[in-house]
Amino acid sequence: MAETATRVSHERLCAFISATFERLGLPAADAGMVAKLMADADLQGSDGHGVMRLPQYAKRIKAGGINPRPDIRVVQERVGMALIHGDNGMGHLVMQRAAGLAIEKARTAGIAWVGSQWSNHAGPASLYARMPLEHDMIGLYFAVGNANHLPPWGGLDMLLSTNPIAAAIPAGSEAPVVLDMATTVAAYGKVKAKAQRGEAMPEGWMIDRAGRALTDPVRAEEGFLLPIGGYKGYGLALVVGLLAGTLNGAAMGKNVVDFNHDHTSVTNTGQAIVAIDISAFGDVQAFKARVDILVRDLRASERLPGVERIWLPGEQSQAKRIAHARDGIPIAAGLMRNLNLLAAELGIAALD
Amino acid sequence: MAETATRVSHERLCAFISATFERLGLPAADAGMVAKLMADADLQGSDGHGVMRLPQYAKRIKAGGINPRPDIRVVQERVGMALIHGDNGMGHLVMQRAAGLAIEKARTAGIAWVGSQWSNHAGPASLYARMPLEHDMIGLYFAVGNANHLPPWGGLDMLLSTNPIAAAIPAGSEAPVVLDMATTVAAYGKVKAKAQRGEAMPEGWMIDRAGRALTDPVRAEEGFLLPIGGYKGYGLALVVGLLAGTLNGAAMGKNVVDFNHDHTSVTNTGQAIVAIDISAFGDVQAFKARVDILVRDLRASERLPGVERIWLPGEQSQAKRIAHARDGIPIAAGLMRNLNLLAAELGIAALD
Repeated sequence: MAETATRVSHERLCAFISATFERLGLPAADAGMVAKLMADADLQGSDGHGVMRLPQYAKRIKAGGINPRPDIRVVQERVGMALIHGDNGMGHLVMQRAAGLAIEKARTAGIAWVGSQWSNHAGPASLYARMPLEHDMIGLYFAVGNANHLPPWGGLDMLLSTNPIAAAIPAGSEAPVVLDMATTVAAYGKVKAKAQRGEAMPEGWMIDRAGRALTDPVRAEEGFLLPIGGYKGYGLALVVGLLAGTLNGAAMGKNVVDFNHDHTSVTNTGQAIVAIDISAFGDVQAFKARVDILVRDLRASERLPGVERIWLPGEQSQAKRIAHARDGIPIAAGLMRNLNLLAAELGIAALD
Repeated sequence: MAETATRVSHERLCAFISATFERLGLPAADAGMVAKLMADADLQGSDGHGVMRLPQYAKRIKAGGINPRPDIRVVQERVGMALIHGDNGMGHLVMQRAAGLAIEKARTAGIAWVGSQWSNHAGPASLYARMPLEHDMIGLYFAVGNANHLPPWGGLDMLLSTNPIAAAIPAGSEAPVVLDMATTVAAYGKVKAKAQRGEAMPEGWMIDRAGRALTDPVRAEEGFLLPIGGYKGYGLALVVGLLAGTLNGAAMGKNVVDFNHDHTSVTNTGQAIVAIDISAFGDVQAFKARVDILVRDLRASERLPGVERIWLPGEQSQAKRIAHARDGIPIAAGLMRNLNLLAAELGIAALD
């Protein structure tokens, strides 16, 4: 980070975000819930999905693009599934509800799948995939991204988003395995970050409309993201979109609203969360012991020249969670200015 | 194809494979079931997973590495899940049973997840993901591959396989969307095919132990496959292995038996199939109509220079299924020789 950053405690960040949402018209309990989830995103280093989004959310709420007092409700239900109508509320509230319901249903059914419609951006996928962990369950999460930056393989029309996949699997004494990935080589936020820092993108992130590598992030609007593994990532983005969007009656393809440029249209965002009760498959401790062994075998692998350490998915965010809880969450100077500007606008105390 | 190929009808191929398995000691109904699934693989162009595998399966059965008369049974069960013990039978039988059970359970629960342990290689992932389609359900399939060719990201020890993911989503008048992909850039079978044809591999498929691109397929044993999207594909292969292997008490990591080189050790292969009942989420016809629109939007996308057509996942195998049903399944001369040799050994009629 070239900019200076101020360290803010998780508690302080929560209080600030919560005050903002209360001022924007959310009920106190809802404001507190969204605040906690957003601060959790920053805590684990998912800073592109944390408090950085607050000014954008505020703009949408003020413009009428998000319903501050939604009636979030179950509209379809069976013993192993539910479909939740988010009533255009904050996505965090919808997915918190969805995860809780999936966990509850998985206790009986062994597995449960809960989809959402009329939801909104909910922050990092891993937040929700992780929720079943403390119940000795595996979590999976799929979502339709909130802007289309990916064409079908061989095409030019941006009909697909970076549709993320997350999975969280508990271990014994090791950190849980937590994967959280876009189905494109780079998430669009990484492109924006390169532009902000004045750096070139590596080849393979984007191509232009002639199919040439695009490495200048300032020209990002002239090209599009590349899927991981070529046609495979295209297929994966499509399948995730069908599961999280189309199946739920949520936006997918041409219906996806670009929430970076449109602050008023209802996004009808679709997500899905799956909870798998490990005890339905056998002994939970035996399972966790097997995960521990696997994790250690992977970590102990001989390494390529120049590689210092083998990382497991989720290990780096776990380390950040611990460090940020101890030292505070770094808020870059530019973001701090934006947040304090928002606070002044709303008449609440500045973050710093 | 440089070699000449003979066309064989699906019916004739089924009869030949079935006769082979009966001679190898499988009950007639089981032999017929495996034969149909293997011939279906060839019919849809998944020829690396079809009758080509018959000599290898025969070798394993004769060597005692596969149980010809397994007692395939449910060992764990809840309303939305089951775990099936394959008793080291042919994987096709185990997964056929698993898919049937998942479909049955999804009718009540809305979704069902059925895992397998003590199973074996079952052919192409898409065969099983497709089974829920005719019941107006979505199918997902995950498996632990039967040989480790992938190290953790940054590592050298091959602890992971090409762990495939498949998904099948029904459409209305369009072909279903069917994705079937390894989590590596290239499946190992493609490397073998390049070696057979004396062609170089493109950069990006494999690297050697110094991290350099490996393009000579004859030297494949000196290197390893690359995951799609770098660390993302590593994470995906790991998560698929945890879900299909570790969760089921099946082999994963160091326990995976390389069935290309070891014909006697029990593989304890793990797989998982998920069936999602579309009617639980809403109107089935409305869902299919949404998929049709999406498929057509993607296909109608403006194209990159030189691209003749946008393909949807599953469209090419659907076209092959129709063509091969009409014209017969092409069996290359070398494979035909191997199959006829096997037939002579077993004292059954030659395929041609």
